[in-house]
Amino acid sequence: MNRFGKRFAFTTFGESHGEAIGAIVEGVPAGLKIDKEFIQQCLNKRKPGSNQYATGRKEGDEVQILSGIFKGVSTGTPIAMIIFNTNQKSKDYENIKDIFRPGHADFTYFHKYGIRDYRGGGRSSARESATRVAVGAVAKLMLKEFGIEVLSGVASVGKVKSKNIDFEFAKQSEIYSLCSQSEEAQKKEILRHKKMHNSVGGSVKVKATGLPIGLGEPMYYKLDGAIGEALLGLNGVKAVSIGSGIEASFSNGASNNDPISPEGFLSNHSGGVLGGISNGEDLEIDIFFKPTPSIFQPQKTIDKEGNERVCELKGRHDPCIAIRGSVVCEAMVACVLADMMLLNATSKLESLKRVYNASV
Amino acid sequence: MNRFGKRFAFTTFGESHGEAIGAIVEGVPAGLKIDKEFIQQCLNKRKPGSNQYATGRKEGDEVQILSGIFKGVSTGTPIAMIIFNTNQKSKDYENIKDIFRPGHADFTYFHKYGIRDYRGGGRSSARESATRVAVGAVAKLMLKEFGIEVLSGVASVGKVKSKNIDFEFAKQSEIYSLCSQSEEAQKKEILRHKKMHNSVGGSVKVKATGLPIGLGEPMYYKLDGAIGEALLGLNGVKAVSIGSGIEASFSNGASNNDPISPEGFLSNHSGGVLGGISNGEDLEIDIFFKPTPSIFQPQKTIDKEGNERVCELKGRHDPCIAIRGSVVCEAMVACVLADMMLLNATSKLESLKRVYNASV
Amino acid sequence: MNRFGKRFAFTTFGESHGEAIGAIVEGVPAGLKIDKEFIQQCLNKRKPGSNQYATGRKEGDEVQILSGIFKGVSTGTPIAMIIFNTNQKSKDYENIKDIFRPGHADFTYFHKYGIRDYRGGGRSSARESATRVAVGAVAKLMLKEFGIEVLSGVASVGKVKSKNIDFEFAKQSEIYSLCSQSEEAQKKEILRHKKMHNSVGGSVKVKATGLPIGLGEPMYYKLDGAIGEALLGLNGVKAVSIGSGIEASFSNGASNNDPISPEGFLSNHSGGVLGGISNGEDLEIDIFFKPTPSIFQPQKTIDKEGNERVCELKGRHDPCIAIRGSVVCEAMVACVLADMMLLNATSKLESLKRVYNASV
Amino acid sequence: MNRFGKRFAFTTFGESHGEAIGAIVEGVPAGLKIDKEFIQQCLNKRKPGSNQYATGRKEGDEVQILSGIFKGVSTGTPIAMIIFNTNQKSKDYENIKDIFRPGHADFTYFHKYGIRDYRGGGRSSARESATRVAVGAVAKLMLKEFGIEVLSGVASVGKVKSKNIDFEFAKQSEIYSLCSQSEEAQKKEILRHKKMHNSVGGSVKVKATGLPIGLGEPMYYKLDGAIGEALLGLNGVKAVSIGSGIEASFSNGASNNDPISPEGFLSNHSGGVLGGISNGEDLEIDIFFKPTPSIFQPQKTIDKEGNERVCELKGRHDPCIAIRGSVVCEAMVACVLADMMLLNATSKLESLKRVYNASV
Repeated sequence: MNRFGKRFAFTTFGESHGEAIGAIVEGVPAGLKIDKEFIQQCLNKRKPGSNQYATGRKEGDEVQILSGIFKGVSTGTPIAMIIFNTNQKSKDYENIKDIFRPGHADFTYFHKYGIRDYRGGGRSSARESATRVAVGAVAKLMLKEFGIEVLSGVASVGKVKSKNIDFEFAKQSEIYSLCSQSEEAQKKEILRHKKMHNSVGGSVKVKATGLPIGLGEPMYYKLDGAIGEALLGLNGVKAVSIGSGIEASFSNGASNNDPISPEGFLSNHSGGVLGGISNGEDLEIDIFFKPTPSIFQPQKTIDKEGNERVCELKGRHDPCIAIRGSVVCEAMVACVLADMMLLNATSKLESLKRVYNASV
Repeated sequence: MNRFGKRFAFTTFGESHGEAIGAIVEGVPAGLKIDKEFIQQCLNKRKPGSNQYATGRKEGDEVQILSGIFKGVSTGTPIAMIIFNTNQKSKDYENIKDIFRPGHADFTYFHKYGIRDYRGGGRSSARESATRVAVGAVAKLMLKEFGIEVLSGVASVGKVKSKNIDFEFAKQSEIYSLCSQSEEAQKKEILRHKKMHNSVGGSVKVKATGLPIGLGEPMYYKLDGAIGEALLGLNGVKAVSIGSGIEASFSNGASNNDPISPEGFLSNHSGGVLGGISNGEDLEIDIFFKPTPSIFQPQKTIDKEGNERVCELKGRHDPCIAIRGSVVCEAMVACVLADMMLLNATSKLESLKRVYNASV
Repeated sequence: MNRFGKRFAFTTFGESHGEAIGAIVEGVPAGLKIDKEFIQQCLNKRKPGSNQYATGRKEGDEVQILSGIFKGVSTGTPIAMIIFNTNQKSKDYENIKDIFRPGHADFTYFHKYGIRDYRGGGRSSARESATRVAVGAVAKLMLKEFGIEVLSGVASVGKVKSKNIDFEFAKQSEIYSLCSQSEEAQKKEILRHKKMHNSVGGSVKVKATGLPIGLGEPMYYKLDGAIGEALLGLNGVKAVSIGSGIEASFSNGASNNDPISPEGFLSNHSGGVLGGISNGEDLEIDIFFKPTPSIFQPQKTIDKEGNERVCELKGRHDPCIAIRGSVVCEAMVACVLADMMLLNATSKLESLKRVYNASV
Repeated sequence: MNRFGKRFAFTTFGESHGEAIGAIVEGVPAGLKIDKEFIQQCLNKRKPGSNQYATGRKEGDEVQILSGIFKGVSTGTPIAMIIFNTNQKSKDYENIKDIFRPGHADFTYFHKYGIRDYRGGGRSSARESATRVAVGAVAKLMLKEFGIEVLSGVASVGKVKSKNIDFEFAKQSEIYSLCSQSEEAQKKEILRHKKMHNSVGGSVKVKATGLPIGLGEPMYYKLDGAIGEALLGLNGVKAVSIGSGIEASFSNGASNNDPISPEGFLSNHSGGVLGGISNGEDLEIDIFFKPTPSIFQPQKTIDKEGNERVCELKGRHDPCIAIRGSVVCEAMVACVLADMMLLNATSKLESLKRVYNASV
């Protein structure tokens, strides 16, 4: 089950400390210019080792494209992308090879599979998300052709919220903060936890603009359902909300319904989705990350035989996974939207006739 | 895209005011006793028209099983279930056939498909969820064989929270409230909104107990990801959280990690999922519903030609969709778990050998 | 695994002697006029009991459409069709409930599932193919909008070949023979076997005309691959060939290649498929059916406990399944083509832009 | 659509003259010893350039495993395999970049995608089949654990049939001939065509032994249907038959049915499949290949603008694709069987209980 999407679909492979990670992307329509620079830039945003707010593991994360492109343009065949791992320090993990790190997938992988690659979490490492970002970049290239943009940023670090929501500011903030006023406090909150050998949670906002009406495939691949799977399936994500989200549960119909005018919807509590289908308004999503489970304090745990043990971690870890996680959220939403664009193309007989130049 | 699940999978059909709704369930292992009474009881919990807290539409919701059962036992072939619609009042919808009800899928269905069955929302009606409940009942029958139980209840109505969480109480509460102390206030909150021709939001808790370790298929069909799709795809659901959920984003690693002891996890912030795989603890999910979009107050809208119009609804509607929605959430989680039970069966070569009696 | 197709997809249910059989069709673009008469006509062609060349079981095979249509037009939601069984004679099967009929699926179903519905073969009965024909009729309605036609007929009965290939003649032949000259001899061949309480094999040709170039999705859903699955999966089919088929294996490149001229291909050894993609020529397929396994002669078999037994059949059976099988082959090819039409719609970025009216 | 299989599933990428080709394999149960040498040996059997009966293109076809293995054993995570292309001579294709080679996919790829990688046929090249062989080798490693073996060999070259069928002989024959007596004549037939700058067709037999009863998932992923898709989707395959195949269509029920005795089936006209499910007998399949479309004679064709042109090929090509094709057929059947082994594991509730150690 290492594949995501129905038509714009991708399959990933790779472990944190294996030879390489990568993805095969299918369904990209032929004729799309593939800007390799842009893909690399997206990867650079997620790349570890950039500053003190992220893990110290320094990976070049240089993507190579192995197929599917001819003369700079997609050919309709699968686009394979690969990133070789270069900065693994597997030794860091020798001491934890027989124990289960709290908050990590060590325990569940071991019991599910009877064997686990303990080096950096193996497949369960967030390292896999680099391949999602690479695929998301291809999705964004496609979406751009239709005037669709996907944006993201950090809405809170611990309890320090972004007072204003400014996706442009987030693009250049070291911690992708959505707010120039709150950024400093958020940075401090991260470093405060880091110094205490601890970590901190955070939340992320994703917005998509320029969407056509009609994206989302009822009944079981609705836009919001697909987003739920894309984002609740990310490492560390514990909650996802769309539009007014949890607030909607406190509200009443008269307040929460978005009235419609000839100029469009008069509010956007729906977050751009009605009945699982995009309504042309901005898609608005909130994603809530738990604190990094890797902390440098002794923690109670057990080993494979069930004996009491103390977990003491080495290695290099993000003090707040929401930061780099925001880049991954953005990528996943782009993938969902690209998929929905393809799926929706045949919703009407009229559209299909337009494709085949049949008489309407 | 009217199919859900990979191995325990179902496909549904039907519109609110069409002839019938129904589902085909695949993947049920042969040899399971199918207790039709139990399926009907589950449907009765969701059935409309039972009391003043639900819509007045009176549907018998009597399920017929058309295939897949022989002498009371599943045969491994698809189980088709059908519910004929009996209490449609399509006339109620004549006045809205050209306008889009705010908060509903009228607008998006019309633009996506170029045509819409306006009678009761057609396919987009929550009526479809009866088929999910029927399928969920089959899933629960299967899960019961493995000691797994799925429970649900209402955690809040508007801002009135359930002070205690008691799934046993919820089973017999008219509004499936999780709290005997809060039930009365929650009922009042519903009726208060109903009297004002308004509606109110609410939230639901689902818990699953008795899970084996190992359910969930990384990377793109993790247990939490699949739950996200199952629940965020439900009508009216605007947020889904697992375990400590949003609270995790305010927390730090030392507090949020669940330490492990020889007797098991010492806390359950994870909500029973680590790395997308069940860890043997209770699965804990919160689901947040918006208020029913159907309210009996005039609302601004437009018609198909884009002209300003006023939407004035007739018909019969739930004042708080979270109530009956809780039954649907429970059913969907059961379906996800049944699917994961099948998928996980081949995770280890050793398991496969046990199936085929091969030498280990 | 009761679903066929990726986008124009259907899921079927039902047993030979259960209450009903049926199908849910997904992916039909909204706006297609659904001619119920036409669907019934297609079913009538497959309907048993019409003449002495088919089984005596008399089924009305009246299809009811339960969803997905509004005012005679598809709405983009799933189309459910149901056929109630009316002429079951389950008593005919009491004597074989513990033994395995040679040539039938009794043995394999029993061992795979540990239980079998012995009445008329249960799910493994060719009765299920009625649902395929109903779905195929919907596919044909869609294909017609694009000038695509699918035709079929009987090419041989036992060793009696159709000398000429005339799909128009087949339409009105009682045994769907492709040749007015051979029809009489083929009928005699059927009756000769019938009188001897035996059965006879046969072969079928399917042709599709008016295809656009581009149908088929490499690498693993090629047009020929999908046809292979659709047809080799039919009851009684033991071989499928495309274009020059087996003859191609005796041939050489200079003879077998189809030269290309400005007016098109100068021959059609390929049968309309190159690299798994339609090339605009007629699609030509041959399908080879084994003789009906149900014969009225004593046959060696065993019972569930493994004891030697003699199988003596009652019941009503087709003496040559290729006859009615031709109708099913035609339907399945129509389904494959409808699916491919949808899938191919997004092969080029340019097509997608046409759908969304984006600037090219 | 570059993915094959449901549970033992793989996705491939790569073009003939691109940087690399490769595959991601999913669903391999954890705990399987992965013998890399064996995978390489399987690839060596398909490798070009070995002798005068194959193309002169010399590819090392060295496989690298990038993920999914830890300490020599599968971990349950996706196994990525990659083969770098080393001996491309793209120059050979400059002269055909604007024309369509008869019998090849040039014409259809160009029209489907609007662009084509003309170097060696790009994605449509049989080079992709190396990835299938690598995946098939993994499948065979898994099947071996259950005593299942898949064998193949060449049954005919043009009209020169293998008189005897000896799968052991085929293993060491330069042309994988199934018959020591016929091998010499078959070799001559190949060279005769090669000398005339022509090519020749051929046919292949695949046999699988040691199968459990129960493989195959009705209704739409039957064993024979899946084999149909796997093999009719291979480059150059024009017909596939199972068991008595086409002969069955000439036969009668009394002759063609396989009687059953306490010791097993008394004949195997079914080829090991009844009702789409394995019956425990040997699986027997015949596959018919067209002659290589690449011949060194001038052929009529057109260019992209539709002008008359003459196609004169350079490059290096197999005179008979059935030879190396046999290795690919064997691999694909192994993949189908591995998939069916996983899918069948949950057919019975009893099997599932065995996996989870639940009380029966």
